[in-house]
Amino acid sequence: MSYDRETVHAVLDEAVVSHVGFVVDGRPVVLPHLHARLGEVLYLHGSTGARALSTATGDGLQVCVTATLLDGLVLARSAFHHSVNYRSVVVHGTASVVEDQLEKITALASLVEAVAPGRTGGTRPPSRKELAATTVLRLDLHEVSVKVRSGPPRDDAEDFGLPYWAGVLPLVTSPGAPEPDGDLPDGVPLPEHVTAWKRPSSL
Amino acid sequence: MSYDRETVHAVLDEAVVSHVGFVVDGRPVVLPHLHARLGEVLYLHGSTGARALSTATGDGLQVCVTATLLDGLVLARSAFHHSVNYRSVVVHGTASVVEDQLEKITALASLVEAVAPGRTGGTRPPSRKELAATTVLRLDLHEVSVKVRSGPPRDDAEDFGLPYWAGVLPLVTSPGAPEPDGDLPDGVPLPEHVTAWKRPSSL
Repeated sequence: MSYDRETVHAVLDEAVVSHVGFVVDGRPVVLPHLHARLGEVLYLHGSTGARALSTATGDGLQVCVTATLLDGLVLARSAFHHSVNYRSVVVHGTASVVEDQLEKITALASLVEAVAPGRTGGTRPPSRKELAATTVLRLDLHEVSVKVRSGPPRDDAEDFGLPYWAGVLPLVTSPGAPEPDGDLPDGVPLPEHVTAWKRPSSL
Repeated sequence: MSYDRETVHAVLDEAVVSHVGFVVDGRPVVLPHLHARLGEVLYLHGSTGARALSTATGDGLQVCVTATLLDGLVLARSAFHHSVNYRSVVVHGTASVVEDQLEKITALASLVEAVAPGRTGGTRPPSRKELAATTVLRLDLHEVSVKVRSGPPRDDAEDFGLPYWAGVLPLVTSPGAPEPDGDLPDGVPLPEHVTAWKRPSSL
């Protein structure tokens, strides 16, 4: 366990989706959400119909938000030592609905930027009606932990001589060819924030 | 929401990591875990020290296990309609520790196969001591749902003429170059289950 803030920020910024856990009638519920980090605040996006968000009125919603990046497969000589290389951030706290309109507009812009950096310059901003139809949750980065596994397998020394290949198979997430929308008018150029898209990476 | 069993199986089989949510002292906790599916059972792996698993004795542990595959970024003309294409399976139920040794050995083999298909043929099976040091949870696929978003952005028709590019940027997870362990003896070949590794994909 490490509480290094730089690592925490890097993982949250690289992960497109996080998993939001909350409790309904004593039972755990975990759903994927888009998120964006601004400083020491994590914003979570949802339509107003989303289950988690609809219960987040009043005193807010107690959540656990976990963002995990899978960096590689750890193939050991022994089945026992198989693992994955990963970086995972866990945030505990009370998520509250963003009511302030300026904060909400800023948060929504950062959520679009989190999907594709530079995208806010190439899209129509939300209308008043769209703003009202969107719920943004705010979670302060107070109770945060990060867990990282990296490096080669950790086989027992007595297994080193076994005739099995051992090592790490790195996994990389990369964009495929952009798929233009069918209703796109002629002459709309493919912007650089699409052609040059990549996640910020600390690796 | 769709309850198609074939889609559920495909998502669980393609996802390397799932997020396991449970409740501790009334608070939600979400942690990443490796999983493997055998028929209508999901097995979750953890060392005996893992927090979730240590509370799963006796009557079992009430969990929500969510596995999400991110398929692409949905870039709309309007900020409001930005989204991601994804497939996400949510399993609710009571996870119980696998006590039967034969079931445990089979589950552990399937967990290794879930990381890299074919790998059980190229690794040392667990010893009695290693078996005892590993906890496997079993969760039946009874209460399961799957949510899928696919296809192009769903902009309002009045936005079609805007000069903004719109479409989908697919995301692909692929293996990088294998990184052999430093203590590997000379002459151990790189096996095909590493060089030809890919996730089973229904896309």
